[in-house]
Amino acid sequence: MKTNRLEAFSDGVLAIIITIMVLELKIPEGNTLESLKPLLPTFITYILSFVYLGIYWNNHHHLMHASNVVNGKVLWANLHLLFWLSLLPFATGFMGENHFESLPTALYGLVLLMASIAWGILFYVLRAQHSDDTVFSKAYRSVWKAYMSTALYAAATALSFFSPVIAISIYVFVAVLWFIPNKKIEQNIIAE
Amino acid sequence: MKTNRLEAFSDGVLAIIITIMVLELKIPEGNTLESLKPLLPTFITYILSFVYLGIYWNNHHHLMHASNVVNGKVLWANLHLLFWLSLLPFATGFMGENHFESLPTALYGLVLLMASIAWGILFYVLRAQHSDDTVFSKAYRSVWKAYMSTALYAAATALSFFSPVIAISIYVFVAVLWFIPNKKIEQNIIAE
Amino acid sequence: MKTNRLEAFSDGVLAIIITIMVLELKIPEGNTLESLKPLLPTFITYILSFVYLGIYWNNHHHLMHASNVVNGKVLWANLHLLFWLSLLPFATGFMGENHFESLPTALYGLVLLMASIAWGILFYVLRAQHSDDTVFSKAYRSVWKAYMSTALYAAATALSFFSPVIAISIYVFVAVLWFIPNKKIEQNIIAE
Amino acid sequence: MKTNRLEAFSDGVLAIIITIMVLELKIPEGNTLESLKPLLPTFITYILSFVYLGIYWNNHHHLMHASNVVNGKVLWANLHLLFWLSLLPFATGFMGENHFESLPTALYGLVLLMASIAWGILFYVLRAQHSDDTVFSKAYRSVWKAYMSTALYAAATALSFFSPVIAISIYVFVAVLWFIPNKKIEQNIIAE
Repeated sequence: MKTNRLEAFSDGVLAIIITIMVLELKIPEGNTLESLKPLLPTFITYILSFVYLGIYWNNHHHLMHASNVVNGKVLWANLHLLFWLSLLPFATGFMGENHFESLPTALYGLVLLMASIAWGILFYVLRAQHSDDTVFSKAYRSVWKAYMSTALYAAATALSFFSPVIAISIYVFVAVLWFIPNKKIEQNIIAE
Repeated sequence: MKTNRLEAFSDGVLAIIITIMVLELKIPEGNTLESLKPLLPTFITYILSFVYLGIYWNNHHHLMHASNVVNGKVLWANLHLLFWLSLLPFATGFMGENHFESLPTALYGLVLLMASIAWGILFYVLRAQHSDDTVFSKAYRSVWKAYMSTALYAAATALSFFSPVIAISIYVFVAVLWFIPNKKIEQNIIAE
Repeated sequence: MKTNRLEAFSDGVLAIIITIMVLELKIPEGNTLESLKPLLPTFITYILSFVYLGIYWNNHHHLMHASNVVNGKVLWANLHLLFWLSLLPFATGFMGENHFESLPTALYGLVLLMASIAWGILFYVLRAQHSDDTVFSKAYRSVWKAYMSTALYAAATALSFFSPVIAISIYVFVAVLWFIPNKKIEQNIIAE
Repeated sequence: MKTNRLEAFSDGVLAIIITIMVLELKIPEGNTLESLKPLLPTFITYILSFVYLGIYWNNHHHLMHASNVVNGKVLWANLHLLFWLSLLPFATGFMGENHFESLPTALYGLVLLMASIAWGILFYVLRAQHSDDTVFSKAYRSVWKAYMSTALYAAATALSFFSPVIAISIYVFVAVLWFIPNKKIEQNIIAE
C-alpha cells in the first residue's frame, strides 16, 4: 500500500473530526449577548482543539511524507491514533459545557495523553522500518518534544484535580510549543 | 471507471461513518465520574465498531487493489456494502444505550451479518470478472474466514436472545480473527 | 480547472449527505421490537434516498468523465445540484417521521424534482461546450429518461395530496428506472 | 508540501461544513405548511451560506492553483480561514432561528468579516512568496473587491443593530459581487 491512501483516509477523518466539533456549539435559546455567554468556554475549548488537530494534521503529513512503507502494523497504529483524536470533540464539549471543572479537564488531558502515546507508537512502528540513513531517520533524529509533551499531558491530567487552570495552561503551552514548526524536519524532507 | 474513484468515495463514506459514530457518545449532564458511567457501554461498543470499520477499510483496500475492473455491478455491490456499514453507528448507539440487552445486541449482529453478506456479494461480483491466473484470484484463493464470519454473525444474532454476553464475545472473537492480517493476500498483492 | 477536483469535491459532499442521512434514524428509548416500529418508515425512506444518491453519484461520475471542460458556469451548476441533494436528508427525515403523509411526501418529491432540474441545467451547460462529435455528445444523445423523470417527479409531487402511496410508488419506479445502467453511455465512454 | 494535499484537506473541510449546515434545518413536529414556516428564515440563510461557501471554495481553488509554494505559514493561514468558515453553520442556525434579529445578524456578519480577514492574511502570506512576474502576481494584481468586501462586512455588522434588513442586504450584495467570476484571474491561470 502506498502512503497516499493512508494519508487520504486520515485527512478525511481529521477533516470530519475538526468540523464535527463545531456541532458542540449548540445554538442558544435567546438572542442576547447574555444567552451567548455560556457558550464562551466551549468556544475557547473549540479553538484549542482546532489548533491541536491542525498540529496533528501538519505533523502527520510530515511523518507520512518522510516514510515510504505502509504495512498492516502502520495501518493499525494510524487507526489507533485516529481513534483517540476522534474523542476530542466529546472531550471538548464535555470540558466546555462544564466550564473547565476538574474531571472534564482531566478527561481532556487524558485524550491528549492517549493521542500522544498513539503518536509515539505510530512513530516507532515507522522508524523500525527505516534504516539510519533514510530521510525519515534524519528528519526525526530528535524527538524530545514528543516525549516532553506526553509527560506534560500526564502531569496536566493529574493536576486537573488540584487546579484546572494550571492544567489548561499546560495544554495551551504544549500547543504553542508545537505550533512553532520544526525547521529540521521541514528542511530534511524538502532537501530530499 | 477506475477503481480509484470507487476507493476514494468508499474511503470518504467509511471515514464519515467512523467519525459520526462518536456523536452517539452524548455529553452527560453532570461532571462526576458517576455521570460518565452510563456512557461506558456505548464507549466499549464504539471501540468494537471502530475496529470493525478499520478492518473493513483495510480489507476493502486490498480487495480493490487486487481488482482492475469496475462496472455497474461492482459499483452497486459496493454501495450495498456501504449501506449496511452506514447502519453501524445506529446499531452501536442502540446497543450501547441499552447496555447490551437482547434485542439491541441482536440488531448489532444483524447489521454485521448483512454487511458480511454484502461483502460476499461484492467479492463474487469481482471474482466473476477475473480469470484464474490474475492477482485477484491468487490472493483470494481461500475464503473460509469470510464464510465462517458470516456463520458466526448469524449464530450470535440468534444467541443474543438467550445470552447477549455470548453474542458479544463472538463479535469480539470475529474482530480479533480479522485483526490478524492475511499474509497470503498481502504477499500476493505486493508480489504483483 | 480539471474535472478532477470538481469530482473530488462532489464525491465528498455526496459521501457526507449519504452518511449524515443515517442520523435521522434516531435511537429509540425502549429496547423492544415495538420501540423500533416507528422507525420503519424512516428506514424505508433512508433506503430509497440512499439508492437515489447512489444513482446520482454514478451518473455524476459518467457525466464528468465524458466532459473535459470545467468553467465557472459548470461549477455553479454543479453546486446548484449539490444544494438540492443536500436537502434530501431533511426531506427523508420529514417524510419518514410523518409516516408518508401528504405534505412531507410532496416535499420529498419537490426536492427530487428540483435536483432533477438542476441535473438538467448542469447537463445543458456541459453540452453547450462540446461539439457534436465528442464523446460527451455521443454518449448523451438520448436524454428521454431524464425528461421523463422530471415529469414524473412533478406529477408525483402533485399527486401526493391525493394519494401519497401513488407518489411514493412513482419515486420507487423512477429509482428502478435509473438503477438499470445506461449501456450506451457506458460503452461510449469506455470506447473512448 | 505540494498544494495538492492542502487543497484536498480544505476541500474535505469545506464539503463537510457545507453539508453539516443542513443539520440546522431541524425537522418540525407537525406535517402542515404551518409547521414548516418557522424554518423559512433558516432555509433562506442556508441558501446564502451555501452560496458563500461555494464562492470560497471556488476562489480557494483559484488561489491555490496560482500558487506553487506551501510552507508552515501558508498552512496555518489556511487553517485560520477554515476555522472562521467552520463557524458559519452555527451563525447560520443562530440567525435563522432568531428570524434575523439584531445580535444574530451581527454575529453572522462578524463571522463573514473574520473569514474575509483570514482570506486576506492567506493571500498576503502567499503573495510574499511570489515574485512580480509569476502567474500568481499577474492574476491577483487588483484586489479591490476583497478590500471592499471586508469593509462592507464590517459596516453590515455594525448596521445590524440599527437595521438587520440593511445588514442582510449587504451580505446578499457582496455574495452577488463575488458570484460574478473574475475573468482576469481565470484567464491568467488558464493562460499559464
